[in-house]
Amino acid sequence: MTRTDVPLIDATRVAVSTVIFSLRRDADGRPLVVLPLVTRTRDPYEGRRALPGGWLDHSESLDAAASRTLAETTGLAPSYLEQLYAFGDVDRSPTRVVSIVYWALLRPDEVEGVDSPENTAWFDAASLPELAFDHNHIVEYALWRLRNKVGYSRIAHGLLADEFTIAELREVYESILDRRLDPANFRRQAEASDSLIRTDGFRTGSHRPARLYRYNRDVELADAGPVAARR
Amino acid sequence: MTRTDVPLIDATRVAVSTVIFSLRRDADGRPLVVLPLVTRTRDPYEGRRALPGGWLDHSESLDAAASRTLAETTGLAPSYLEQLYAFGDVDRSPTRVVSIVYWALLRPDEVEGVDSPENTAWFDAASLPELAFDHNHIVEYALWRLRNKVGYSRIAHGLLADEFTIAELREVYESILDRRLDPANFRRQAEASDSLIRTDGFRTGSHRPARLYRYNRDVELADAGPVAARR
Repeated sequence: MTRTDVPLIDATRVAVSTVIFSLRRDADGRPLVVLPLVTRTRDPYEGRRALPGGWLDHSESLDAAASRTLAETTGLAPSYLEQLYAFGDVDRSPTRVVSIVYWALLRPDEVEGVDSPENTAWFDAASLPELAFDHNHIVEYALWRLRNKVGYSRIAHGLLADEFTIAELREVYESILDRRLDPANFRRQAEASDSLIRTDGFRTGSHRPARLYRYNRDVELADAGPVAARR
Repeated sequence: MTRTDVPLIDATRVAVSTVIFSLRRDADGRPLVVLPLVTRTRDPYEGRRALPGGWLDHSESLDAAASRTLAETTGLAPSYLEQLYAFGDVDRSPTRVVSIVYWALLRPDEVEGVDSPENTAWFDAASLPELAFDHNHIVEYALWRLRNKVGYSRIAHGLLADEFTIAELREVYESILDRRLDPANFRRQAEASDSLIRTDGFRTGSHRPARLYRYNRDVELADAGPVAARR
């Protein structure tokens, strides 16, 4: 078989996309889970919002492609991107595309000051517009994984500043789970977790002082992927 | 750009491979984690053992490709295959191949009676020969995930018969973790888990009768993937 015998139209192409979750405060000061989306500048779905991403280069690994395409489209450079899932339904794009999707959590201070291209904007994950391809479904899946698999330390590590109060941590959980949690129960569970360390500091302000916690770096994060498994 | 402008040699191809774990008893009656491997009948790595798998068809989903290639190469048809990870290092194959790897657990009774092609054989996961491509690394990763992420109910559901003793469950854990576990501690933890249900039955034989347990089907399995997330 010579190379011209293979019609390009039948080739499956590999793309990489990334879901980056971060937190913003809304007008009432409550945290929202947000993610960056880009506006597509070509067909299919020209003008629609989509996850940042791009084609896998012949000479780069999947991890490298995720970092590169994210940097190119959003200017963001999370220190740690984790592979989430490969999406490969036949009809997810007009041509056959398998998308390897990565995800990461970014603290607000990691997002501030990043000079994103003009066609990148942050959206509330709970009220997204209709996105290109199956990207609404991909975000929904990433949120589901976040809800199901993320422990206290991970959330704290990924989305909050180094030190935080239990109430701040609870607010983050409430925004991810999209429901209110009982403050006393949450406090009890969080304090019992070996992934949080009580500090000597307190947050003072308009309310009574609240104890500050930090996450326990000794607790290994799950899902660190095959590279970590090799160590 | 016409299709003939794209040299086929530069195209990234998508393959699907599957790691199926099951249990066998060794000569001393202790369970071993085993998996089926096929002998490659062509280059690269002709004659080497490899994970069952094949190319993704243009017109099938990733899940369908995993089931099809597994059935074609091993005759096995697990009711549930879960996506594990996409492996895409540049040098993992002489040509550029991204492999979407699936995995499953099979109970011994699901393996018995399956008419596997002659070039399929079961291997002890703890002492594999040198496999084709990066397949040793993939198996190592799958074992790591099994060790880290699998709860009592899942192990019981996936690898044991419907009813089992705590000692049988512990032996399974010992074979997966490749180390001895303290019987009293293990029993205490297993009995406290809401994923095991105490039955009225006992295993009798040469030892004193041992209580039989079954797994709790009401406890949802984690990692059910995007399809389950949509439900």
